[in-house]
Amino acid sequence: MMILVKDLLAGNRLALSRLLTQVENDTPDGRSALNELFSHTGKAHLVGVTGAPGVGKSSLVNQLVLHYRKHTKKNIAIIAVDPTSPFTGGAVLGDRVRMRDLAGDSGVFIRSMASRGTLGGLAHATAAITQVFDAAGFDMVIIETVGAGQAEVDIARLAHTTLVVEAPGMGDDIQAIKAGILEIADILVINKTDRPGLEHTERALRGMLEMAHPVRHVFLHHGRTEMVEAPSGTQEISETTWIPPIQKTNANDGSGIPELADHIQKHAQYLAKSGDWERRERLRLETELDALIQDTLADRFRTSLPEEKFDQVLTEMLERKLSPWEAVKALMNGRQH
Amino acid sequence: MMILVKDLLAGNRLALSRLLTQVENDTPDGRSALNELFSHTGKAHLVGVTGAPGVGKSSLVNQLVLHYRKHTKKNIAIIAVDPTSPFTGGAVLGDRVRMRDLAGDSGVFIRSMASRGTLGGLAHATAAITQVFDAAGFDMVIIETVGAGQAEVDIARLAHTTLVVEAPGMGDDIQAIKAGILEIADILVINKTDRPGLEHTERALRGMLEMAHPVRHVFLHHGRTEMVEAPSGTQEISETTWIPPIQKTNANDGSGIPELADHIQKHAQYLAKSGDWERRERLRLETELDALIQDTLADRFRTSLPEEKFDQVLTEMLERKLSPWEAVKALMNGRQH
Repeated sequence: MMILVKDLLAGNRLALSRLLTQVENDTPDGRSALNELFSHTGKAHLVGVTGAPGVGKSSLVNQLVLHYRKHTKKNIAIIAVDPTSPFTGGAVLGDRVRMRDLAGDSGVFIRSMASRGTLGGLAHATAAITQVFDAAGFDMVIIETVGAGQAEVDIARLAHTTLVVEAPGMGDDIQAIKAGILEIADILVINKTDRPGLEHTERALRGMLEMAHPVRHVFLHHGRTEMVEAPSGTQEISETTWIPPIQKTNANDGSGIPELADHIQKHAQYLAKSGDWERRERLRLETELDALIQDTLADRFRTSLPEEKFDQVLTEMLERKLSPWEAVKALMNGRQH
Repeated sequence: MMILVKDLLAGNRLALSRLLTQVENDTPDGRSALNELFSHTGKAHLVGVTGAPGVGKSSLVNQLVLHYRKHTKKNIAIIAVDPTSPFTGGAVLGDRVRMRDLAGDSGVFIRSMASRGTLGGLAHATAAITQVFDAAGFDMVIIETVGAGQAEVDIARLAHTTLVVEAPGMGDDIQAIKAGILEIADILVINKTDRPGLEHTERALRGMLEMAHPVRHVFLHHGRTEMVEAPSGTQEISETTWIPPIQKTNANDGSGIPELADHIQKHAQYLAKSGDWERRERLRLETELDALIQDTLADRFRTSLPEEKFDQVLTEMLERKLSPWEAVKALMNGRQH
């Protein structure tokens, strides 16, 4: 076993730091370490946090982690995934805010992830970093994505529990996105409750929830959003069905944070009881395996193909002599044109 | 030549509609059509429009197209790319708004693109749809993306001219994204100028622009954002350098729209003069070729691999007996485990 891996498993934070860098840069050592670490994974609760820019995800995660540190013994890792980083050097702002509150707490570890050049690379690197934290014994890994595109949603949904964060007063054309990510939300958070438009946002989300989960809409009408509060007689359903609760929070004064932590806890219990935990694990690993296979195939292909050949075919495309599909065929068959 | 292709090239709108569906669904007929159409592409001005949700991209595009239709003879196609659609059925809201203003104008064609299951698929389908419009003789194809993730940015940046739309009063944590997409912006638009916070947003954008383009910062200080307005003596530079202008617009009353159309026109001229048009074309086609190769390789691999074999390896991953990389190796080498 690599020494770094041994040290990491023994709880050494410096080893953790170093391994994260190796893994993020996808070095041979990083890959070996992942192979050795993998059998130690599968214990952490993975929590994804996604939502449009401006809804206050970073502050929310901050407050949530402070809450956990104060009231539980959980060790928590935060991965801040920022696909826009290649241009700028990363989620610097968010990190600085965090540092102020969480610095010096050895039970918290924050890692910002920049893009690895490709989206597939980013998702892969996030999965790998998650495994390192998991093996290092963190009880919870929070994966927070900046941006509200499908890539971010895809990354967040690989978690066991996905929080979708909204804020009042976003534009009307955000509705489409709301409707979209609603279906991946295990817990809906309306943050920044001091903003105007709170009632409108809440009504809109409840409306969408009722459409998505018509069976449960009676409880929703009564504002009952937690499964455990459902009337008796429906308990049987509640173990195999989860209606996303809507939790209002204000990261400034911390209101709603304990309730949010409670929902997260209940969702983990639901996952275990219903068998969804394992189903999500399988989906997550399948997605990762697919991505790795695709990367490997593409690498092999590009390595085996002479640069000039590719350039030549590309030039013929540019001259409109070859269509894209004809170009693929030409390159795949290795024929000269 | 396929009859549909012939009809399309002759300007038949029904043939266009049918071909778009074939191409979007990636049918064998769609692929054949693309092969036949490709030699007719390369003429349209591709304009990407991106920015965070809530900044009013749809209304802006709407106004811009109305302007073009009133004052020019341009035929314009709009592709609304909505990666969140697989969940919901698409950018319905935006379409409805558009229909009201643009319905019945045969010089305008709107197509909403839902996700093709994967991000690669979405980018590929968008490229293909763009080619159909290009071959059909549209002078301009506007590619508007919903969401502000890297996927959306990647799609928008494949255009010749990329508009990045901002709006005043978005949260502070949007700054990171602003900084990121700034570097892909050919034209910066501050929409919804009636919102509070306009000056703050404009100052922030100008600050970022000055950092990104220090050479030009004298002109920016004077609010000179158009290359043609640069003092004489710098005209030589201006043919090979483009500083993104900042254009304020209000899609409600249409203010700033004619100026925006002007910037777009000037950018096209700049691209032609500087040789950037061809460079961008090459980059675009290279990206498309890479994506097609990757898809083809992955398809072939999954087809050649028995389902049970994949499931077996996945189960061993789930049991932590195989790490992801070991699983890839096992599948690639086709060995039994």
